[in-house]
Amino acid sequence: MIKKTLKVIKIGGNIIDNPEKLEQFLHNLSQLKEAFVLIHGGGKIATEMSKSMGIEAQMINGRRVTDEATLKIVTMVYAGWINKNIVANLQTKSVNALGLSGPDGQIVLSKKRNPEPINYGWVGDITQVNGSKLKSLIELGFYPIFAPITADKDGNLLNTNADTMAQAIAIGLSSFFEVELSYCFEKPGVLMNSTDDHSVISKIDSTYFEELKSNGIVNEGMIPKLENALKAIAEGVKVVKIMHADSILESNSGTSIY
Amino acid sequence: MIKKTLKVIKIGGNIIDNPEKLEQFLHNLSQLKEAFVLIHGGGKIATEMSKSMGIEAQMINGRRVTDEATLKIVTMVYAGWINKNIVANLQTKSVNALGLSGPDGQIVLSKKRNPEPINYGWVGDITQVNGSKLKSLIELGFYPIFAPITADKDGNLLNTNADTMAQAIAIGLSSFFEVELSYCFEKPGVLMNSTDDHSVISKIDSTYFEELKSNGIVNEGMIPKLENALKAIAEGVKVVKIMHADSILESNSGTSIY
Repeated sequence: MIKKTLKVIKIGGNIIDNPEKLEQFLHNLSQLKEAFVLIHGGGKIATEMSKSMGIEAQMINGRRVTDEATLKIVTMVYAGWINKNIVANLQTKSVNALGLSGPDGQIVLSKKRNPEPINYGWVGDITQVNGSKLKSLIELGFYPIFAPITADKDGNLLNTNADTMAQAIAIGLSSFFEVELSYCFEKPGVLMNSTDDHSVISKIDSTYFEELKSNGIVNEGMIPKLENALKAIAEGVKVVKIMHADSILESNSGTSIY
Repeated sequence: MIKKTLKVIKIGGNIIDNPEKLEQFLHNLSQLKEAFVLIHGGGKIATEMSKSMGIEAQMINGRRVTDEATLKIVTMVYAGWINKNIVANLQTKSVNALGLSGPDGQIVLSKKRNPEPINYGWVGDITQVNGSKLKSLIELGFYPIFAPITADKDGNLLNTNADTMAQAIAIGLSSFFEVELSYCFEKPGVLMNSTDDHSVISKIDSTYFEELKSNGIVNEGMIPKLENALKAIAEGVKVVKIMHADSILESNSGTSIY
């Protein structure tokens, strides 16, 4: 049986935080021919909320520590404010969006991250994606929009990395669809020369990745992204794209990992 | 064709604000034999949040005015924190809960309330319920859990009365199910004598309602509730119950309006 194409698209804070960029992105999204699932990050709103409530963000190695107050704020901001605004906006563009978080239908299940060696607090690592349930929603004509909040088996809500969530959802759906996973960010793709936006590397496979890594062409931040992309490919995702958020309608843009 | 029974249940702040009561209620809910839809109110958390952010709640005639800051807070608290906690909790009790707000699937559409004669701000009056879409989710085995946030056709989020939302959803589903709409509150039902919890009136129809009203037995707060209940009956809901939240498993408890 030929599987239908499905796009799993992740957007981050740089789009969420900019109303004009977000509007343009959602407009482009509404023009897509394929069914899609969107996973959105959080952006600066949670940090601003915390500040206005007098809660100081704790960071370890550049990562936010999710204490109880922060968990409450990120759940409210990501699963409440951002998610429902995106859904309501897409509905005005005739996209039958359905806002979800991990606990909804227990589609994404996680467990609290081991507090050793570093205690990041109420942070979840994904243990399971119920691709079949998510597929049934997609087949009903819904476009799932995920906030990066999950829950564990005991019902504890957990702050979850949106990149990882997009990857897990893409893998979970790859038994049912030909999945194209796209990471949208502020650069046009993986660059051969980090200061030249025209030096996009169009295709990377695992062999070429090793070469780029040993040459020092892909840097610290990009290495885990590419490793995750290759892991997704190994687990059934058809192609992973790293691209600029403006380019989701252009099939040949960005870097394709396969 | 015989329609299946479906319960549409509304709970308010008195349960939401009390972790033990909420736990007991959700446990009872998980024991129900019938499919159900839950609509939850907000409780005091939004007011506390506003206070901690230095936003003063504005009230007109005992009703909260929803300015922009308040809309953001109620959306975050109701659709984010409360909704996802209830969903995650029900999932631990093997209830396949799915958290929703009005814009999700555009299942509940509203319009901003006319600012004349009183401007309540970003408050929505429901204009349409897509019962067919909601039915399709229920038929997939999901238990929809609604936060009282809706959106209008332009994608503006709107604060919405949870009682009215429960009524509109019950009516919207009554073409597909035999709907029992239950309003859970802190009293065992409509009382013949407001100081005697044992004086529950077990059944009220429109004729009896007029009698109770002219006798002065039902008071100011209860009159609109009963009028709404009778409106729901007139529009296809099988029975409306006004009952204590502890009694959802007891079929003969509370007051039945039919």
